[in-house]
Amino acid sequence: MKRIAIDMDEVVADAHGRFAEWYKRDYAIEFTPEQLSSNKIEDLFLKEHHHRIREYVFHDDFFKDLSVIPGSKEVIRDLHDKYEIFFTTAAMEFPNSLLPKLAWLGEHFPFISWTNIVFCGDKSIINADYLIDDNVRNFKGFVGQGVLFTASHNRNVEWDVRVNNWQEVRAMFL
Amino acid sequence: MKRIAIDMDEVVADAHGRFAEWYKRDYAIEFTPEQLSSNKIEDLFLKEHHHRIREYVFHDDFFKDLSVIPGSKEVIRDLHDKYEIFFTTAAMEFPNSLLPKLAWLGEHFPFISWTNIVFCGDKSIINADYLIDDNVRNFKGFVGQGVLFTASHNRNVEWDVRVNNWQEVRAMFL
Repeated sequence: MKRIAIDMDEVVADAHGRFAEWYKRDYAIEFTPEQLSSNKIEDLFLKEHHHRIREYVFHDDFFKDLSVIPGSKEVIRDLHDKYEIFFTTAAMEFPNSLLPKLAWLGEHFPFISWTNIVFCGDKSIINADYLIDDNVRNFKGFVGQGVLFTASHNRNVEWDVRVNNWQEVRAMFL
Repeated sequence: MKRIAIDMDEVVADAHGRFAEWYKRDYAIEFTPEQLSSNKIEDLFLKEHHHRIREYVFHDDFFKDLSVIPGSKEVIRDLHDKYEIFFTTAAMEFPNSLLPKLAWLGEHFPFISWTNIVFCGDKSIINADYLIDDNVRNFKGFVGQGVLFTASHNRNVEWDVRVNNWQEVRAMFL
């Protein structure tokens, strides 16, 4: 059985949505879904707010109750029948994210066992056939095929294998 | 540069020592180092205590301030010059262990970056040349060479590559 490793933020969990939500809370500035999907999120924030926004991810609540990226639940449930699925997230940089991320996966992907969850830093440590991720830097040294999941910040990044949404993941693997 | 993955409990962190400490606290029964090193720890505990002891690992304090296995700091510091070192621990089973384990590594092995720490369940996900571990079940599906680190519970387990202590790790790798 081939093995697919799947990143969390911006692949199954909408962390950008949380940034936008808290930005609206703090500065009363709201972005449309179109703005969020077509701009790097940091380009949307005013420069004078960047310092505070960079601290968001260190708050205990940041990673709680993130929205699920549309289609990911259904497609991963189907992939799970034909592939070994691992969630692999570079969570070590934000220790406050560890427990919320684990709880979030248990809530939204209860069919993926705790044995198949990996919190790491450098994804070259992952032994899998495919890695679906929104950051090409995570493909450096990865032993399998990196599959770039489109997010606003990687639209102009060159990579040979790209999927724009979970329907395209389904089409590629099933 | 070859890569060595290193387990935590009973390899660098003395979790059995914590079991013995809490057992003494709760039942006023103390074990000698000789008893601890020559018996499976569960064989030392009275049967009527097993139920309570199995709950120890779910306590928030269990993984805090564990003793460091003798020699591990010095040898890993030296290995670190010639190998890529990753700590890889099956921590997902005990969510309460995640933050204490991360803090413990930062305290005792500050020269190992957070990028090289992995919390996982199934170690077949680890891409490394060697895995130093006290459980042969973690070598199942592991892509590299499993190196069994002797602990009281694996003395009678058959495995082709075994090290009895950190001096033997040094001799094998340096």
